[in-house]
Amino acid sequence: MQKIADLRYALAVLQWDQETYMPPKSNEARARQVATLSELSHQMFTDDGLKNLLYELNKINDLQEDEKKNISLSLYDYEQQTKIPGEFVRKLSEVTSRSFQSWVDARKTGNFKIFEPLLAEMVALKKQEADYLGYEGHIYNALLNQYERGATVQMLDRVFHSIQQPLKNLLDKISTKPPVDDSTLLKHFPREQQWKFSMDLLKKMGFDFNAGRQDISEHPFTTSFSSTDVRITTRIDENDFGNMTWSCIHELGHGLYEQGLPSSEYGLPLGEYASLSIHESQSRLWENNVGRSLACWQFLFPVLQQSFPEQLGKTSIESFYKAINKVQPSLIRTEADELTYHFHVIIRYELEKKLMEGAIQVNDIPAYWNEQYKKYLDIDVPGDKQGCLQDVHWSHGSFGYFPTYSLGSLYAAQFFKEASNQLPELNVDIQKGQFQTLLSWLREHIHQYGRKYTSEELCVKLTGEPLNIEYFMKYASEKYSQIYGL
Amino acid sequence: MQKIADLRYALAVLQWDQETYMPPKSNEARARQVATLSELSHQMFTDDGLKNLLYELNKINDLQEDEKKNISLSLYDYEQQTKIPGEFVRKLSEVTSRSFQSWVDARKTGNFKIFEPLLAEMVALKKQEADYLGYEGHIYNALLNQYERGATVQMLDRVFHSIQQPLKNLLDKISTKPPVDDSTLLKHFPREQQWKFSMDLLKKMGFDFNAGRQDISEHPFTTSFSSTDVRITTRIDENDFGNMTWSCIHELGHGLYEQGLPSSEYGLPLGEYASLSIHESQSRLWENNVGRSLACWQFLFPVLQQSFPEQLGKTSIESFYKAINKVQPSLIRTEADELTYHFHVIIRYELEKKLMEGAIQVNDIPAYWNEQYKKYLDIDVPGDKQGCLQDVHWSHGSFGYFPTYSLGSLYAAQFFKEASNQLPELNVDIQKGQFQTLLSWLREHIHQYGRKYTSEELCVKLTGEPLNIEYFMKYASEKYSQIYGL
Repeated sequence: MQKIADLRYALAVLQWDQETYMPPKSNEARARQVATLSELSHQMFTDDGLKNLLYELNKINDLQEDEKKNISLSLYDYEQQTKIPGEFVRKLSEVTSRSFQSWVDARKTGNFKIFEPLLAEMVALKKQEADYLGYEGHIYNALLNQYERGATVQMLDRVFHSIQQPLKNLLDKISTKPPVDDSTLLKHFPREQQWKFSMDLLKKMGFDFNAGRQDISEHPFTTSFSSTDVRITTRIDENDFGNMTWSCIHELGHGLYEQGLPSSEYGLPLGEYASLSIHESQSRLWENNVGRSLACWQFLFPVLQQSFPEQLGKTSIESFYKAINKVQPSLIRTEADELTYHFHVIIRYELEKKLMEGAIQVNDIPAYWNEQYKKYLDIDVPGDKQGCLQDVHWSHGSFGYFPTYSLGSLYAAQFFKEASNQLPELNVDIQKGQFQTLLSWLREHIHQYGRKYTSEELCVKLTGEPLNIEYFMKYASEKYSQIYGL
Repeated sequence: MQKIADLRYALAVLQWDQETYMPPKSNEARARQVATLSELSHQMFTDDGLKNLLYELNKINDLQEDEKKNISLSLYDYEQQTKIPGEFVRKLSEVTSRSFQSWVDARKTGNFKIFEPLLAEMVALKKQEADYLGYEGHIYNALLNQYERGATVQMLDRVFHSIQQPLKNLLDKISTKPPVDDSTLLKHFPREQQWKFSMDLLKKMGFDFNAGRQDISEHPFTTSFSSTDVRITTRIDENDFGNMTWSCIHELGHGLYEQGLPSSEYGLPLGEYASLSIHESQSRLWENNVGRSLACWQFLFPVLQQSFPEQLGKTSIESFYKAINKVQPSLIRTEADELTYHFHVIIRYELEKKLMEGAIQVNDIPAYWNEQYKKYLDIDVPGDKQGCLQDVHWSHGSFGYFPTYSLGSLYAAQFFKEASNQLPELNVDIQKGQFQTLLSWLREHIHQYGRKYTSEELCVKLTGEPLNIEYFMKYASEKYSQIYGL
């Protein structure tokens, strides 16, 4: 298992390099290198010898609980993997590498047509993959389950349906109020100083630079090659301070989770993250519940003002706090406020569902996309760059991934409420920049368990109940009522 | 063969990352990842299926010359590889990763004792490896042959013996002359500007940044993940302009060679470099025959003066040219002048020879080293950092490597003389900064052939005779007679 992990992590190094430092002419060669490593790790994992060992170990009764868990989860993964033929894995990986580059090119020029042929190839492969994996009910369930075990169209339809109306009501109320002025964030913030501030921010919030790094990439992401080597990336827009800052804190949340996974379980399921929605709960918790809180900036804002005296010297913390929580329907998911965010996910979820069931085709995407943004958020999409080309995921073959973003935010609210209950001093500590209080709590209650519990098990163990959207709605409604004076 | 290359190149990415960007806590994890990839590529290459295919292909007569060459070289490699058991490869790779880190730590503090245990382990492994490989005559021959096919103690003793005396005579003459003043190179040259100059230099000399990059590392090196992705590294000393500049041009020479290898032969022997001494001939040719020539700086010096007006504005090109060719026995091989350089190699060669035959032990190295520097170069080594810890190679397990450095310089002189004969405009073109003339010639006569010819075959094909040290001695004697007015 650990040797397979070595290969998977090597693959992750190649992919990290591809998105940060690799020169452009190397696409072809890198695509085949990535494909070969994918295929090899797939071969090793689906090897009969390993299977027999796992089945035999699974029969032994007097093992420790953690050992049993590692075995049963490995068996589950094995069974999932063996559903997919090695040649298909190689094909998928090869298309993924080429597809990523074509997405980069398409996004640069905002021309969906450049990406379309490879995306169509990808969608066809994903349908084939769903057939290999098997599913009950909707074909999309096969893909959803890859990212969030047990997630189904039925379950997600319910969650999205139940948040849609209360969110709409809150947004309607906000829209009757005068818009927040966030022009202070849209001044010129030089690249170099933003970079320094982001590095300082990461250090203050507890990212261990001896076990990780930050670099620049087209699309921010987190990857890890062990819990002792966690790489996060960011991007910088000189005319929008928020673009870098909250994506940086977001990736920090992912990074802290990865650094907190037990390194003694290297390569084994218990050394892995619980699920993508739990991963996202960590990034969203840091990004929003911490990173967009008044308490956090009571500490950070004076630091920030020192870095940017010209831009922010005359801004009050109150107006800064309002600016960073401005609610406004917008085009880009990763820059969206906490409320409209979920509509970005819902649109994507519906789109992928329709794509998988064949109700729409790849060449329909731009038109469908723009139509939905009009319908849900009442905004016009000026071009595909700010529309359906904005996210990297499809180029990676990640279909069924987006719902975990919303689930993550919902879990984050529930977990943060629990942390506040258990740690009466939490808010004051954050005001003092003592982020370690929260980090230690997350390490103890979430990170250290790795993949021992499912999302729901972990949520019940930690908060006494399964996912409950009321925590998010209460948090959102209180926070924004205060900000907008509702 | 190409899938094996994918693995080897993936391994190279991991190693590049380890020496450029990897955070320190990741050493253990990276060591095992590197070991697993090494072992896998070894397994794949020594697989019976591949062997049978190669033997069968080798029997077919009506193949093209290049195909035959690819097969026979693959068979040679196969036979070399199968001499070494997979478990040994894994062990060696694991020790190598740990050893590299301990060298970094030892070098930082100048404390050989930190490196000693791992170096001792490495030397023991190297002796074992020599036994696996087999050899006639001296045990060191087994290791020398790994880096330069056919190289032996007998052959190298002869080469080193024949250059030693004429070099000594030239050095003696120089020592009667007043020393060159190179203080102009030792002013303060800010890091950022040096970096910019080095990037500009690489572009001007023909490095393709769409198929490669330059980064910073402890010890400069070149690696490649295909001829479309060639990575070079450099280091910067703010108080010594020469430290960065000629190591940058040196790695450029390696990099240009790698970028010139035929990408159509990806993963096959003909897509690889001819030999390490030919590789080194390319780096030394650019570093010295071009990079320390008057012609080159007639073009570059005005550019350089613009980058560093304070430091160099008042320096004449004549005194700059003398400064960059100052001959003086010194401590660090990579910073040595062209003449004393060979004594650094000779000392190392003698040391490794003695280490392998057991005439000295690992704990004798610092004392032996310092003694030899006194004997050959009449200098006192103030500490191991500037002594036996200066080079990374032993930590990589590279024993038998250093002689290729001298061979490279000797080949470089012979090749450059041939280029000058064939290209009457060469000197003028260099004066005009038209380095493409030389690069195209090297591409045509050396790079494009990959590993088709051995060092000697290539040398004969190109210059009409095998390695002849007279070219180097004539070049050196003319150049330094002019500089020192002998």
